[in-house]
Amino acid sequence: MNPIERLSERLIHGDAKKAVLVHSRPNRYYLTSFPSSAGILLVTAGKAYYLLDFRYAEAARAKAKGAEVVDLMNMDETLKGLLTKHGVQEVYMEYTALPYGTAMRYKKICESAGAEAIFDTTLDDALKAQRIIKSEEEIGKIAAAQAITDKAFTHILGFIHAGVTEREIALELEFFMRKNGADGNAFNPIVVTGKNGSQCHGVPGDTVVQDGDLITMDFGAMLNGYNSDMTRTVAVGHVSDEQRDIYNTVLRAQVAAIDAIRAGVRCCDIDKVARDIIETPYPETFGHSLGHGVGFEIHEWPGFSKVDQSLTEPGMVITVEPGIYVAGKCGVRIEDMIVVTEDGCRNLTHSPKELIIL
Amino acid sequence: MNPIERLSERLIHGDAKKAVLVHSRPNRYYLTSFPSSAGILLVTAGKAYYLLDFRYAEAARAKAKGAEVVDLMNMDETLKGLLTKHGVQEVYMEYTALPYGTAMRYKKICESAGAEAIFDTTLDDALKAQRIIKSEEEIGKIAAAQAITDKAFTHILGFIHAGVTEREIALELEFFMRKNGADGNAFNPIVVTGKNGSQCHGVPGDTVVQDGDLITMDFGAMLNGYNSDMTRTVAVGHVSDEQRDIYNTVLRAQVAAIDAIRAGVRCCDIDKVARDIIETPYPETFGHSLGHGVGFEIHEWPGFSKVDQSLTEPGMVITVEPGIYVAGKCGVRIEDMIVVTEDGCRNLTHSPKELIIL
Repeated sequence: MNPIERLSERLIHGDAKKAVLVHSRPNRYYLTSFPSSAGILLVTAGKAYYLLDFRYAEAARAKAKGAEVVDLMNMDETLKGLLTKHGVQEVYMEYTALPYGTAMRYKKICESAGAEAIFDTTLDDALKAQRIIKSEEEIGKIAAAQAITDKAFTHILGFIHAGVTEREIALELEFFMRKNGADGNAFNPIVVTGKNGSQCHGVPGDTVVQDGDLITMDFGAMLNGYNSDMTRTVAVGHVSDEQRDIYNTVLRAQVAAIDAIRAGVRCCDIDKVARDIIETPYPETFGHSLGHGVGFEIHEWPGFSKVDQSLTEPGMVITVEPGIYVAGKCGVRIEDMIVVTEDGCRNLTHSPKELIIL
Repeated sequence: MNPIERLSERLIHGDAKKAVLVHSRPNRYYLTSFPSSAGILLVTAGKAYYLLDFRYAEAARAKAKGAEVVDLMNMDETLKGLLTKHGVQEVYMEYTALPYGTAMRYKKICESAGAEAIFDTTLDDALKAQRIIKSEEEIGKIAAAQAITDKAFTHILGFIHAGVTEREIALELEFFMRKNGADGNAFNPIVVTGKNGSQCHGVPGDTVVQDGDLITMDFGAMLNGYNSDMTRTVAVGHVSDEQRDIYNTVLRAQVAAIDAIRAGVRCCDIDKVARDIIETPYPETFGHSLGHGVGFEIHEWPGFSKVDQSLTEPGMVITVEPGIYVAGKCGVRIEDMIVVTEDGCRNLTHSPKELIIL
């Protein structure tokens, strides 16, 4: 079954009165394999329609999967016509991603076709349940994106030296990944050196790498719609005892967390494994969650966080990325991406994790 | 006055009961000059607060303008506390950009603080009114982004030849703009050659440029938050009489539309100038609007479209981009970005427009 058929089986199960309307780009891309900045996917019991304007319709006819492409001049009229034609009475709408103003517009169109727009989390929950467990094919695509990312890390080790700027490192990472097949960045790379290292989401700037700096690089590739995500911190010239201790504490926390992962564990318990190791020697320096799901979007489900009590399941792809951030001094983060298996996990990241001094 | 003060003057005018909550990234970036993937800007009569989590707070303290940065652990509680502290009773919310689920969450928080969340277009309209007219400083930033884009066009002319792929051209455009100072793409470049040219928003692929092809490149740079946008179609080797006639028709339409622009003209009338020139010789080949506002986002207001009856005003920055698309054969589009002035317009795009045969 393709993703649209699976969604239909979950929510519509052949009931002609029911339909699903998908507006947000990632969900449309996930369901149809066709990326576009605008469009609507309407799934009815009998048939799925992908409503696209002139700009995308021709390309979608060749590439979109599981839905008939409808080239529209007037979206509202076309949608109303299809709802009426199929006698739809209830339309499940997105909740988290649908803009409020757009929701009100669809509500009106549904009403004009005699149907009710349902604004609750039914559709979001169904899509999450589908997307949170990755198939082997999907894991293969994520691993392929990560292979490019690992290759870029090896490459950048030969590029970094005292005198280069954060921005130059970030550009080199990006260009290398693109030239090696990535469709784009999974997100804008984070490259922070020295004192900037404590800004765990800092934007690469004109700060120059100096001997004795720790440099944190957080980057990933996007390939065939799927993302990768990794972080490494490396040193230039020499390291102080304090820097080495911070690094090794983060590494210990990261390895211990990965060792604790297997199917059926509460996500918050994995977060706690890493947090306990860091918080005793370095209290209040690890201000974010341990990890997040990765897939069609760079931040998916579940979260290795204090508050996520859900249980891990085989096929979930999640990052493990503890960090220590000392304001005005430095930062360290180490991040791998793992797939949960029955009795453990498989690490999709193959770059070394011992402290590298360039 | 900074953008937050201007917004406050428009909507709050010193009334302690009123406040504005801004959630969407482009509006927060526009108002504070600080980009972040998450956060809330709360503007009260007395003071503006930028609520950011651990990841962004430190950087924001150095860079965000016009608002006090609040580093939060629990967003809902912090927001409730500030609303209560200021005795706010009415909170204007975004309409077009705010996700439905988030809107419901803010609604609850407001209610718990004794305030009403107002979901209509008041805030969107105020922000649009501010953002639609660009200051000289903003126009300077857009022009700086376009200068990089023009430079990339000159560069790419020496790169294109029979045998290169769409994807290689797109990457070269991107890398050149980044190396020449762009913070990023304004959007993913469109590069389509030969028959693919009729897909006016096609994704660059492995299609190889051949002698006799027309190649359309639509690309732009992002710099200091502002975007540029241009399109050129060039030929490789030789052109047929039909290709030349299509090109010259698009060029005639584009130049005529630009000549018709001045303050106080209906946007739809400018669209019609170009459309009339194209539709007689090439009916049903120009399926999109003539142009769109550009600024902090790549698609802003107003639109040179059939349906936009608003009047042009000095300071609006708008694209002029007619095209002809013949399915299975070829496509041509020529796009400049202009600033409306009292008695005409200023063209921010300086690349040549005559047909170039490489």
